[in-house]
Amino acid sequence: MQHCDTLILAGWCVPVEPHDLVLTDHAVAINDGKIIDILPSPDARQRYAPGVLVQRPDHILLPGFVNAHTHAAMSLLRGIADDMPLERWLSEGVWPLENRWVSAEMVRDGTRLAIAEMLLSGCTCFSDQYFFPEIVAETAVDLHMRAMVGTPVIESPSAWADGAAECLSKAADLVHDPYADHPLVSSCFAPHSTATVSDQTFTDLRVLADQLDTRIQIHLHESAQEIENEQNSNGKRPIERLRDLGLVNASLMAVHAVHVTDNEIALFADAGVVIAHCPRSNLKLADGIAPIAAYGKAGVTVALGTDSAASNNVMDVLGEMRTAALLAKVEAHDATALPAAQALRMATLEGAKSLGLADSIGSIEAGKWADLACIDLRHINSQPVYDPISQLVYTVQPQQVSDVWVAGKHQVDNGTLSHIDVAELLQRTSEWQYRIAGEQERKSA
Amino acid sequence: MQHCDTLILAGWCVPVEPHDLVLTDHAVAINDGKIIDILPSPDARQRYAPGVLVQRPDHILLPGFVNAHTHAAMSLLRGIADDMPLERWLSEGVWPLENRWVSAEMVRDGTRLAIAEMLLSGCTCFSDQYFFPEIVAETAVDLHMRAMVGTPVIESPSAWADGAAECLSKAADLVHDPYADHPLVSSCFAPHSTATVSDQTFTDLRVLADQLDTRIQIHLHESAQEIENEQNSNGKRPIERLRDLGLVNASLMAVHAVHVTDNEIALFADAGVVIAHCPRSNLKLADGIAPIAAYGKAGVTVALGTDSAASNNVMDVLGEMRTAALLAKVEAHDATALPAAQALRMATLEGAKSLGLADSIGSIEAGKWADLACIDLRHINSQPVYDPISQLVYTVQPQQVSDVWVAGKHQVDNGTLSHIDVAELLQRTSEWQYRIAGEQERKSA
Repeated sequence: MQHCDTLILAGWCVPVEPHDLVLTDHAVAINDGKIIDILPSPDARQRYAPGVLVQRPDHILLPGFVNAHTHAAMSLLRGIADDMPLERWLSEGVWPLENRWVSAEMVRDGTRLAIAEMLLSGCTCFSDQYFFPEIVAETAVDLHMRAMVGTPVIESPSAWADGAAECLSKAADLVHDPYADHPLVSSCFAPHSTATVSDQTFTDLRVLADQLDTRIQIHLHESAQEIENEQNSNGKRPIERLRDLGLVNASLMAVHAVHVTDNEIALFADAGVVIAHCPRSNLKLADGIAPIAAYGKAGVTVALGTDSAASNNVMDVLGEMRTAALLAKVEAHDATALPAAQALRMATLEGAKSLGLADSIGSIEAGKWADLACIDLRHINSQPVYDPISQLVYTVQPQQVSDVWVAGKHQVDNGTLSHIDVAELLQRTSEWQYRIAGEQERKSA
Repeated sequence: MQHCDTLILAGWCVPVEPHDLVLTDHAVAINDGKIIDILPSPDARQRYAPGVLVQRPDHILLPGFVNAHTHAAMSLLRGIADDMPLERWLSEGVWPLENRWVSAEMVRDGTRLAIAEMLLSGCTCFSDQYFFPEIVAETAVDLHMRAMVGTPVIESPSAWADGAAECLSKAADLVHDPYADHPLVSSCFAPHSTATVSDQTFTDLRVLADQLDTRIQIHLHESAQEIENEQNSNGKRPIERLRDLGLVNASLMAVHAVHVTDNEIALFADAGVVIAHCPRSNLKLADGIAPIAAYGKAGVTVALGTDSAASNNVMDVLGEMRTAALLAKVEAHDATALPAAQALRMATLEGAKSLGLADSIGSIEAGKWADLACIDLRHINSQPVYDPISQLVYTVQPQQVSDVWVAGKHQVDNGTLSHIDVAELLQRTSEWQYRIAGEQERKSA
């Protein structure tokens, strides 16, 4: 008998790689935070002497979800500015609130709330862009969550930096130290958008990103208005401007990418640009529906993101996966577009690939980190089960997530957060609510 | 002190009528199955001596959801034929399975499963169309669920009727007896679609519906293909054909109504036709997105339906409400379209109106049936709470439904079904799964 830290026996196991495979009655063995084996449960019982045995007979075990685009701290602003178009939502809703409230403390508490919500809905890795990225990184490590921390780059001053130059120097610090080789945290540059960053800053950023071998993510072609504004001020579409500045390459993640021409899709495919698709945010802000079927045909990698709780208003990749699968069909006028297994792949392995992490997470394969989620199908809304992957994509609610492991650590156990004090978290959240809402009310009174 | 059977004290109460009103710390008093009062909680404690006191301090109390379009029994076919366009889904997926499996027993067990799912997600009334409608009615009464039972009318023979003539005679029986004045069950005619019903049958149906003062619901303009086929065979669009047959009037519910011209919207508004909007089903079958903002501007009543679990694949109106609110914005290119309070109204009072039941259900008003749902906002994904109606529409998951009352009967209590044996229900569902899947596998082997 061979020792392993944890052995999980599941009714079904969906490793994602190989594609569209459902293994019945299989086990995953974990040691030192990594997957060491995936094998039929009867064999696993004979081969392994686990420290902890977890039995989930009515459940699907799958790779944890990757949330490719978040502004985690904004969960403290959930639902405060709804039913507004993107430009007004930013200028009248979000930006004034951010100017008033963003601080290291706000980022820590908001990020904690978001991580709790993401863990409870089966997510094991998120890719964030927000002020005080060093606090996001610290919080992720503190809660043992995997994170790609994007350092914001924006010309206008914020509570975090005086302008673009300080953004870049702080970003470089974060890449170097203390997270250079951290097993959970990596970092990238996150220029906000072409509307808010100058050519000079983009050029400096490109040089720095090349030196440090760092990825870049940017909101790009989110709304038709954004493209029109850019054409009016620079005579170019945002993608065109970035291409001319040398940023359209395999290090680039285009967040949203809703409005694109066939040529732009081909350019993304040729250059190896990846997409972070945030379907519910795009609907809520009336941006449009990204052409996911066309990206798929062109071979462009598409990951899924929730965007912030201020524009979604939840941070569960499960719901994003279902919405993506449904929307892709109507957008392509083709009910066979984005079938369930492909939607699941976007939420896991394609997400990992989009962050440059496909070698270490995103599928259940020996040698990868044990970032796993387990989902209970014995709920009335998921029965009967003819096809476990269909049930997963088209029927499962976040509360059916029974267990989550991040690098082998059992973060959600039978539906409950193991290492986060929920009562304390809700108490802190209430305090923020009273501070923010109180001031809003005093202002409007 | 005045006696009442039940007094519910809630953190927030959203009566839906008046529109967009949130009452903080309010109570609802119930007696003999009906709402007798809605008042501030401190006053309620002084005025009422309740048989049962229910305290829900972190919850929203609201009218139970109305699911305006279902094929409840098909929940036994959940997920068996995914990622297919409407015409193939019907001809290759659903119809062969129905021909093989539909029976009184299947309808009873499938409807029980659907009712359990609907209750757990806050729904207190559903409008169904399926074979063996008398079994649907019997099951609804048995489980104490409110139902509008649509008797199917279709030319082709089924396990339930030899053809359209028998459908009509059975339909008339159901209207007369035994549910003529039942407090929970009413009935209507449900011709399947213009593709499957002849002019003669529509004419007979209209005469019968006038005699019996009965409403009619029909799948109408669901897909572009359906309209094209009808034009090819009759030279008319389906709405045009129905109009010429005298069926476009205030008794008609048009289910789906995705593809409509401005003139058809105006016709619906003038005639008082109501719409059952099934957004997730329309997405999944790649039918399109119904123009909900335009219907609203024209003054057309729009209700929400889940359609069947074979095309959705869940039956929660909560999810449908959120999807409707998000889709309406992108369809109208307007982020202010279908704001949260209006989406909630569609899921409740407009639903009641669409079934001709607005006098007795759909809002929290004294004299109406106590059909109520209570939703717990103290979940991480719904915190903080700046706007309770926003949280309800944009963040709540079905498992946050804590309590449901149907005509005053406490059907869901703290998240658990009070009067349905879930273990037995899941066991019966498993048996169906093994019978149906087993035969599918033997066929393909």
